[in-house]
Amino acid sequence: MSETLRVAIVGGAGYAGGELIRLLAAHPGVTIASIHARDRGGAPLGSAQPHLGPLGLDLSDGEPGNVDVAFLALPHGASAAMAVRLLDAGTTVIDIGADFRLRDPQAYATWYGGPHPAPDLLATAVYGLTEWSRDDLRGARLIANPGCYPTASLLALTPFARAGLLAGDVIVDAKSGISGAGRGAGSDYLFTELTESTRAYGLGGHRHQPEIEQGVVAAGASVGVTFVPHLVPQSRGLLATCYIELGSDLDDDALTAVLADAYDHEPFVHVSAAPPATKLATGSNHAFVHARRVSPRRAVVLCAIDNLGKGAAGQAIQNMNVAAGLDERAGIGALGVHP
Amino acid sequence: MSETLRVAIVGGAGYAGGELIRLLAAHPGVTIASIHARDRGGAPLGSAQPHLGPLGLDLSDGEPGNVDVAFLALPHGASAAMAVRLLDAGTTVIDIGADFRLRDPQAYATWYGGPHPAPDLLATAVYGLTEWSRDDLRGARLIANPGCYPTASLLALTPFARAGLLAGDVIVDAKSGISGAGRGAGSDYLFTELTESTRAYGLGGHRHQPEIEQGVVAAGASVGVTFVPHLVPQSRGLLATCYIELGSDLDDDALTAVLADAYDHEPFVHVSAAPPATKLATGSNHAFVHARRVSPRRAVVLCAIDNLGKGAAGQAIQNMNVAAGLDERAGIGALGVHP
Amino acid sequence: MSETLRVAIVGGAGYAGGELIRLLAAHPGVTIASIHARDRGGAPLGSAQPHLGPLGLDLSDGEPGNVDVAFLALPHGASAAMAVRLLDAGTTVIDIGADFRLRDPQAYATWYGGPHPAPDLLATAVYGLTEWSRDDLRGARLIANPGCYPTASLLALTPFARAGLLAGDVIVDAKSGISGAGRGAGSDYLFTELTESTRAYGLGGHRHQPEIEQGVVAAGASVGVTFVPHLVPQSRGLLATCYIELGSDLDDDALTAVLADAYDHEPFVHVSAAPPATKLATGSNHAFVHARRVSPRRAVVLCAIDNLGKGAAGQAIQNMNVAAGLDERAGIGALGVHP
Amino acid sequence: MSETLRVAIVGGAGYAGGELIRLLAAHPGVTIASIHARDRGGAPLGSAQPHLGPLGLDLSDGEPGNVDVAFLALPHGASAAMAVRLLDAGTTVIDIGADFRLRDPQAYATWYGGPHPAPDLLATAVYGLTEWSRDDLRGARLIANPGCYPTASLLALTPFARAGLLAGDVIVDAKSGISGAGRGAGSDYLFTELTESTRAYGLGGHRHQPEIEQGVVAAGASVGVTFVPHLVPQSRGLLATCYIELGSDLDDDALTAVLADAYDHEPFVHVSAAPPATKLATGSNHAFVHARRVSPRRAVVLCAIDNLGKGAAGQAIQNMNVAAGLDERAGIGALGVHP
Repeated sequence: MSETLRVAIVGGAGYAGGELIRLLAAHPGVTIASIHARDRGGAPLGSAQPHLGPLGLDLSDGEPGNVDVAFLALPHGASAAMAVRLLDAGTTVIDIGADFRLRDPQAYATWYGGPHPAPDLLATAVYGLTEWSRDDLRGARLIANPGCYPTASLLALTPFARAGLLAGDVIVDAKSGISGAGRGAGSDYLFTELTESTRAYGLGGHRHQPEIEQGVVAAGASVGVTFVPHLVPQSRGLLATCYIELGSDLDDDALTAVLADAYDHEPFVHVSAAPPATKLATGSNHAFVHARRVSPRRAVVLCAIDNLGKGAAGQAIQNMNVAAGLDERAGIGALGVHP
Repeated sequence: MSETLRVAIVGGAGYAGGELIRLLAAHPGVTIASIHARDRGGAPLGSAQPHLGPLGLDLSDGEPGNVDVAFLALPHGASAAMAVRLLDAGTTVIDIGADFRLRDPQAYATWYGGPHPAPDLLATAVYGLTEWSRDDLRGARLIANPGCYPTASLLALTPFARAGLLAGDVIVDAKSGISGAGRGAGSDYLFTELTESTRAYGLGGHRHQPEIEQGVVAAGASVGVTFVPHLVPQSRGLLATCYIELGSDLDDDALTAVLADAYDHEPFVHVSAAPPATKLATGSNHAFVHARRVSPRRAVVLCAIDNLGKGAAGQAIQNMNVAAGLDERAGIGALGVHP
Repeated sequence: MSETLRVAIVGGAGYAGGELIRLLAAHPGVTIASIHARDRGGAPLGSAQPHLGPLGLDLSDGEPGNVDVAFLALPHGASAAMAVRLLDAGTTVIDIGADFRLRDPQAYATWYGGPHPAPDLLATAVYGLTEWSRDDLRGARLIANPGCYPTASLLALTPFARAGLLAGDVIVDAKSGISGAGRGAGSDYLFTELTESTRAYGLGGHRHQPEIEQGVVAAGASVGVTFVPHLVPQSRGLLATCYIELGSDLDDDALTAVLADAYDHEPFVHVSAAPPATKLATGSNHAFVHARRVSPRRAVVLCAIDNLGKGAAGQAIQNMNVAAGLDERAGIGALGVHP
Repeated sequence: MSETLRVAIVGGAGYAGGELIRLLAAHPGVTIASIHARDRGGAPLGSAQPHLGPLGLDLSDGEPGNVDVAFLALPHGASAAMAVRLLDAGTTVIDIGADFRLRDPQAYATWYGGPHPAPDLLATAVYGLTEWSRDDLRGARLIANPGCYPTASLLALTPFARAGLLAGDVIVDAKSGISGAGRGAGSDYLFTELTESTRAYGLGGHRHQPEIEQGVVAAGASVGVTFVPHLVPQSRGLLATCYIELGSDLDDDALTAVLADAYDHEPFVHVSAAPPATKLATGSNHAFVHARRVSPRRAVVLCAIDNLGKGAAGQAIQNMNVAAGLDERAGIGALGVHP
């Protein structure tokens, strides 16, 4: 490609925004045109993201101008209106936020507390779980980047759903690092409160539950999903432990074959020989999956990702690469930082 | 009480042994007669347990002599023979290890890789989940202290099992701090390998699964148990997330009432208003439970403990207190160390 | 003693306050009369301190009434006026905060940004580094509890200062767990920002520097102190690494003897055979010291404490015990929680 | 460059080796020819380094064959003999280990417990603190990669030493993540022992002390160095806190100017406006320095790096780039992974 894509990042002072900048700054096919952060226009990027200070970039107020791609890393409800304007201006929009993830406006209203700001766009948004959406992603103008929990859960569940193997409701017990709560988290997220501690949350309902269920149904399985997220004392990393009921008696080899058939040629999803540690994926766009039978008709499927990598910024860039016809691995090929 | 119990700790160089010593040294009704650690006879306790150095005690080789109570914190298979000798000598034995937890010798053989060393004793051992075994514990001579995972799981499940509310198989997704792996753990347990990482293990079968199932069945529920343990990056703390199927449609208040009926008068088990963080229990013998409906017929029951406290040493002392007729809270009343 | 002391804790929603409550609730010579937390009157203690919920206590607005001892755990500047009123009412005041630590009103004004609210009291306040102030503490009515950094630094330096061995300026490079920043810390103290990271702070001047220097001078050494604090990724624990210049050529044994002479009969300060890990002290009032020559005329003296234990709440209770003529170890005898 | 360098990594199962592989696999000017790990020949790389499994590479026994560059990540004493053979075969050798760091064979013997295996090579080895050795590095055939502590310490101290500003002995109080201890570390390095704990070590003398002193002297300062390393509870990251005595009265701006003059045009060393957190550098080859006056004639100079990045593998590749005439930033441009 003789020219590079001009991109903007909106929400550049947050954690997902920071990861986007870190990766895009080193992407060979991209030029960062602008980085937007509310109330910080003119400030050096390093004032908000000290680790990115060496880039020597500045923050902007306002909205992206004439760019090819805009990444929106904003709180829910804030992306939709800006997306309309950007799309009208000819910019491809990749929304890291939640505004375009649920296809059903009614579900959005139920889970996000009000009517969708741009319901007409829901039908055109492509849900970017890359490995399962490539055909739709090519040339897409509006991409809904999946949530971190749905990414891990659906990478684990989709192969079984598509193979018609899910015979009953699914339980997803998920464990996430704290960065998923964002940089604006309050005093419950102080180091002192969270180190050496694990807890469940969201038992009364979490917005990623309908998103996971939507994905399982879209993959052909008419089953419900119980979803319980937990916080574990680490910054990055997300493990989805998925309990599935099987219609038939598959042994470990057969379960592994289902995953291998789905992912053996994938550059970013790897079938792991052992239960994967989240640390395998830290700082990367890679995902590690593993399945094992735990009773005659029940199996566990695991998926480990970095919630800010494949669970957010990494996958957003992967989606951009596919949408723009670039090498899918461009800019996101790095392996996990270990130990 | 005019006299104190003379106690011995066997396995005093390990983590559970160290916690026993720490607590027993401050127990008002106890005198530590001897602490045993293989190949360390004559060494100061502080050489093996630096934090206990201020006690000024020494380690012994061999077996306990004339003591009232012996705590055995040994690898499985090593307790049984010593227990026989101690019982013959009139000593009460509290086994922190696994040798007397499964009542069925055949189950022991299956899960522990060989015939039980003293099958006749299995029928006489009292399974010491204190809150549910007090009648049997009073005056007991041989107490099998429950495993850490079964302690948390059965504190969560037993009220529902006894109330006849378990209508289908149970899934226990458990998260444990690393101290559960013991002091002899290998290079997979280096700080570098585990910090900022979470992983499942034991998918091929974990010895605590039959122990949990035995407890659920003993509480009156004829259901199976799927058990998947995980390691989370913290030293202490264990959370059992139990997914149960309900025979009827109980709301959150009704679920909470089941727990409250069971535990409202308990000094060490507390019904928590929110999903409990494991840190509430760190360094203590306290447990925190919480239940919530997640679908019309499915609920989640949580239990957070310190795996070395209520999950090991704390409960062992609680059992000793009940067996010996002491105040059940003696020596273990401390609340969790937070933050 | 036939009766117990009635005590109040002011600032009971913070970390030092919580540790005071945790320890005092189990103190055999104490009854907690009231716990005060601004804007939380009437709320259950567990709403602010979930780990203390099992105590079943409530929070109060306002100031302590008729109590024997009041512990003030308040931001600087807030203690002094309340102390005046409490002292007038006959209550013994132990100030965990900074208001009475510096004896020189001018130094207070310089470091705390304004004139002292009650300068007349400065002369009467006893600086409660217990091991070195017992004579003054007995019967004391107003006790200034040392800061966490000064406690560790002065436990290390005082024996050498009093022996006339400090021949030049002292450098204290200190490392503290995050709980020292308190519960009200901002977004720089989120788990995500601090885990897996170490940094210095306060290079432009930290209020504990004059407090350490005051203590060294009081012990007879006319030397300056350079003090640089660091944050390390742990909740509790503080290590002071003190670099001293020696007037003569002392070997390791001689250095150790200086510490042993000072502390061998102390219940809470232990001369450690190896460089002490902060974890030895976690959750306890114990301190571990160690000295080693690193060049012909320079030595390193280390002191490890729990900043909330010996560095705050533990020492406050130790001071109360001495002031009231109780067993100095009452209520604070617990050893460190390890691992 | 029309061709790529063929490289080998020896010691590929360790932490520094793993980081070399992770970075070199993505280096645009390099082809990995072989990875060597004792007793693991033929095993997949993923069996030793699970996070690198996706590369699909295998491990080799024996020594590198016909390669352009060999990186040796071996225990001290093991590199020298292999280096001789590789140099004879025309291979450029970059030794991550300690064998060629001290130029004085007598110093080597003193600190490493025996005579140097190849003393003749010591004079020809280039000490690769890249920013200060570029002229010597160009075309170098044998490069001694600095230790992690010396890298951080000398990046902080060299500008002051070269400017003639060091007027007295230097104290380096350093804090390192645990990965510095390597993958073969023993039970003292279990997660349980180190989490939530900080301690000093090496007080009796650490091999990096003479290396730091050698560097300071080489930069023109005839001063001694006191060096005390500490372990902090994090996997990666190293902070050197350097206390220097100034011959004149420099204010903060003047101190900063010394660093800025040295590093403003450097791609990997950044003068930080605030005391740098080690996390700024995690996973990267970047270093962050900062200086501040703490008394009229004393200053603190800080340097934060990733001990496996700029402190080992990153700098080794930077050195290779310079030696081979590649873009110095090739393959190591990534910024730190935060949060």
